Amino acid sequence: MTDSVQLLGISNAIVDVLAHIEDDFLERIGAVRGSMTLIDKDQARELYGKMGPATEMSGGSVANTIAGFANLGGTAAYIGKVKADQLGTIFNHDMRSLGVDIRLKAAADGPPTARSHVLITGDGQRTMQTYLGACLELGLVDITAETVGSPKAILLEGYVWDIAEGPQLAKKAADIARSNGTAVALSLSDSFCVERHRDSFVQFVREDADIIVADEEEVNALLGTTNFDETLEALDGYDNLFAMTRSEKGSVIVHGDERVVQAATPVEKVMDTTGAGDAYSAGFLYGWANDRPLDECARFGTHCATTVIQQLGARIEPGLIDDLEAP
Amino acid sequence: MTDSVQLLGISNAIVDVLAHIEDDFLERIGAVRGSMTLIDKDQARELYGKMGPATEMSGGSVANTIAGFANLGGTAAYIGKVKADQLGTIFNHDMRSLGVDIRLKAAADGPPTARSHVLITGDGQRTMQTYLGACLELGLVDITAETVGSPKAILLEGYVWDIAEGPQLAKKAADIARSNGTAVALSLSDSFCVERHRDSFVQFVREDADIIVADEEEVNALLGTTNFDETLEALDGYDNLFAMTRSEKGSVIVHGDERVVQAATPVEKVMDTTGAGDAYSAGFLYGWANDRPLDECARFGTHCATTVIQQLGARIEPGLIDDLEAP
Repeated sequence: MTDSVQLLGISNAIVDVLAHIEDDFLERIGAVRGSMTLIDKDQARELYGKMGPATEMSGGSVANTIAGFANLGGTAAYIGKVKADQLGTIFNHDMRSLGVDIRLKAAADGPPTARSHVLITGDGQRTMQTYLGACLELGLVDITAETVGSPKAILLEGYVWDIAEGPQLAKKAADIARSNGTAVALSLSDSFCVERHRDSFVQFVREDADIIVADEEEVNALLGTTNFDETLEALDGYDNLFAMTRSEKGSVIVHGDERVVQAATPVEKVMDTTGAGDAYSAGFLYGWANDRPLDECARFGTHCATTVIQQLGARIEPGLIDDLEAP
Repeated sequence: MTDSVQLLGISNAIVDVLAHIEDDFLERIGAVRGSMTLIDKDQARELYGKMGPATEMSGGSVANTIAGFANLGGTAAYIGKVKADQLGTIFNHDMRSLGVDIRLKAAADGPPTARSHVLITGDGQRTMQTYLGACLELGLVDITAETVGSPKAILLEGYVWDIAEGPQLAKKAADIARSNGTAVALSLSDSFCVERHRDSFVQFVREDADIIVADEEEVNALLGTTNFDETLEALDGYDNLFAMTRSEKGSVIVHGDERVVQAATPVEKVMDTTGAGDAYSAGFLYGWANDRPLDECARFGTHCATTVIQQLGARIEPGLIDDLEAP
């Protein structure tokens, strides 16, 4: 399939199960505040049994970026594995309703659609316990010239490396992309994920990725650096385009000799920082896909992230870029 | 089963599918603003296909009251039909996590768990299109001495009359209740529902119900009256306990010669009126179940409703009555 979408996401397709918890709940289940932990089916069942009433909505890091990219007016497609169950139906519905072209059929058999138990403490911080379920079934067989097509870029997430065939399917997707003149972008997901797969990530960044979107901690974990000056120095050895978010310090884009420093926009009240990085990626890549200069891409990313942290929930609403483009 | 719960709810077990819509969406699908319409499977599929990304959470009118009653510290049980699918699991999980005793097993076969598509316009008003699915399978066979037990009261909702065996199972539940000295409460659901089943409701109120919880419009529809003075006059002919909500006019309790008029609490900003009536019922019945005088029951109800309209979502959080009981 040749196609004309701008961005294809390849990632873990996850439904979020959000619940407010008491502060001591994390201690009782032995979870580290603010972390994302992978759990198996039995642990998922046990955790859900202990949780209070929850709200369900489509989630997943790069899936959120793809949804945001589509909402900004970009054309997008998506590869991720859900089962043909109710949560899988919800996930695919939500993506399709934004105009995202879903490239894989939901699986008739196998484990259920993945869910991430998002435990929200009183201060708004989120701790995630994720059961990958059907995501783990994503395999080399799903990555073909037909499903990848020839978008302007593909966007992979680090969490894909948690899948058995993840590193190989990422490589295969990158090879198909290269043969089509498609750019390869990688979101580093989280610093623990980078630690889990560091060598493989470094190799992928060296050999396959054109664009890296990540926060400062993730880049530090990748490069083995401990502060941002060291990071910038270490990046001299890379020719990728790095778009790095630094929370209230804004973001920094590095591409060879080119550097863009974008300040954060001050906000009155941060409601919920979940999805800020994913939203930044959506805005940044929307600018990139539309051939905007890097400083404008950084402004788009910042605008999306600033909007998302002032609302509850990780996804950005339609029409956001219109505000930005208005004089 | 003899048991010691205070309140048993019998109602339609529904998962809400909430989505924000543009104002012209309702015109395009031919829906009346603010109404609740029943739709079939094909209509549900078509509607969901047209809807944007949604959020899913447990809902249902009397189910919300039962959840609220449990959150206030009351002991509660629930009879409603879900399928053993993911939405049914979510519904039962959310109720159980509040300590509600779920009396029926999820059905292995038959239609999927019910969902109500809640379409929210820019002004916060909600229009509901409900596919009853598994709810329609609730039958006489599910209402037994064992499943009903001997609570202090049972609470039925008018929507149960939309089920084929609904009127008969309501009657059977009332008969079991009467034989155990259990009170029978009825929530009138909505004025269109009252119109659909008016004669049967009048008979049930005359012969079976001890307590009626309803808003002013629903009582008017029941009694065929057009203003509240007429309503109060018509109630002279009834010996039931009527707890009637009147939005910003507060609430009025009528029981024989006894009348309680409770003012509404002024609020700065109404976020979302959904579930105000259900929350009022939870507070009112919590007071009633704990043998409080009617004016205190009305205060409890008002406090719950006032809290719910200042938040997004229909359900009330734990610990609410603690504020109220504090000096």
